Amino acid sequence: MDKIPILRMGAFLLVTIQVDLYDRLALNLEADLVKMVNKTNAKGVLIDISAVSIVDSFMGRIIGNIASMSKILDAETVVVGMQPAVAITLIELGLPLKGVHTALDMEKGMNMLKSMIDSNEEDTDEDQTDYDLIAE
Amino acid sequence: MDKIPILRMGAFLLVTIQVDLYDRLALNLEADLVKMVNKTNAKGVLIDISAVSIVDSFMGRIIGNIASMSKILDAETVVVGMQPAVAITLIELGLPLKGVHTALDMEKGMNMLKSMIDSNEEDTDEDQTDYDLIAE
Repeated sequence: MDKIPILRMGAFLLVTIQVDLYDRLALNLEADLVKMVNKTNAKGVLIDISAVSIVDSFMGRIIGNIASMSKILDAETVVVGMQPAVAITLIELGLPLKGVHTALDMEKGMNMLKSMIDSNEEDTDEDQTDYDLIAE
Repeated sequence: MDKIPILRMGAFLLVTIQVDLYDRLALNLEADLVKMVNKTNAKGVLIDISAVSIVDSFMGRIIGNIASMSKILDAETVVVGMQPAVAITLIELGLPLKGVHTALDMEKGMNMLKSMIDSNEEDTDEDQTDYDLIAE
């Protein structure tokens, strides 16, 4: 199993990280996720890391990369379920996950994404742009 | 990582199986899921097996067990994302997953769960029972 499944839920994509993100797996995940955002016109990506108990600088960087890639495709990224030990390690490693939104659990993360998307759409409406927005 | 995370989404629980379910992991998953159904009063369980490419009789039995356990706790189980090869293997192994609902993908599975729960609630309303139902 050298792929992490990406689940589609309405306008969101959900990824649950349960295994160590070694090089190839992480690169596959990045590529698959970007393709899926593009294909499904997703507005948000939820990454659940509640099963991750050990984090290193590589994994921190991958999460940051995914968030940046999604952002330029107009999708917000929220990381949910971070264990306290992981938060401690990330900060001690000097990786404050800049540009990545975080939430305590799945439900809070989804609410966060919804409110971010709503406010983005309002901004766009005010600008009177004619982008093809999905009315939800 | 010897636990499979269980994500809560409203009245549903979501489990993504990405690794081989060896004995201890499978038993942990069963126990955790039953606890979570009880704790969160969940009405449905979604099991995503899109990352599973090899299935054996043990895994088939575990999925059946989870569905039966959830059922007696009044939660429906839907298995989503089964790969064609897995469906072939299950039938060849003589495991038609009786009592387990299946759907092609996450979204279809979630719609299926919603309609099952709605029809269950209607039935209960008609029977004029006084069970403590969650109005959604």
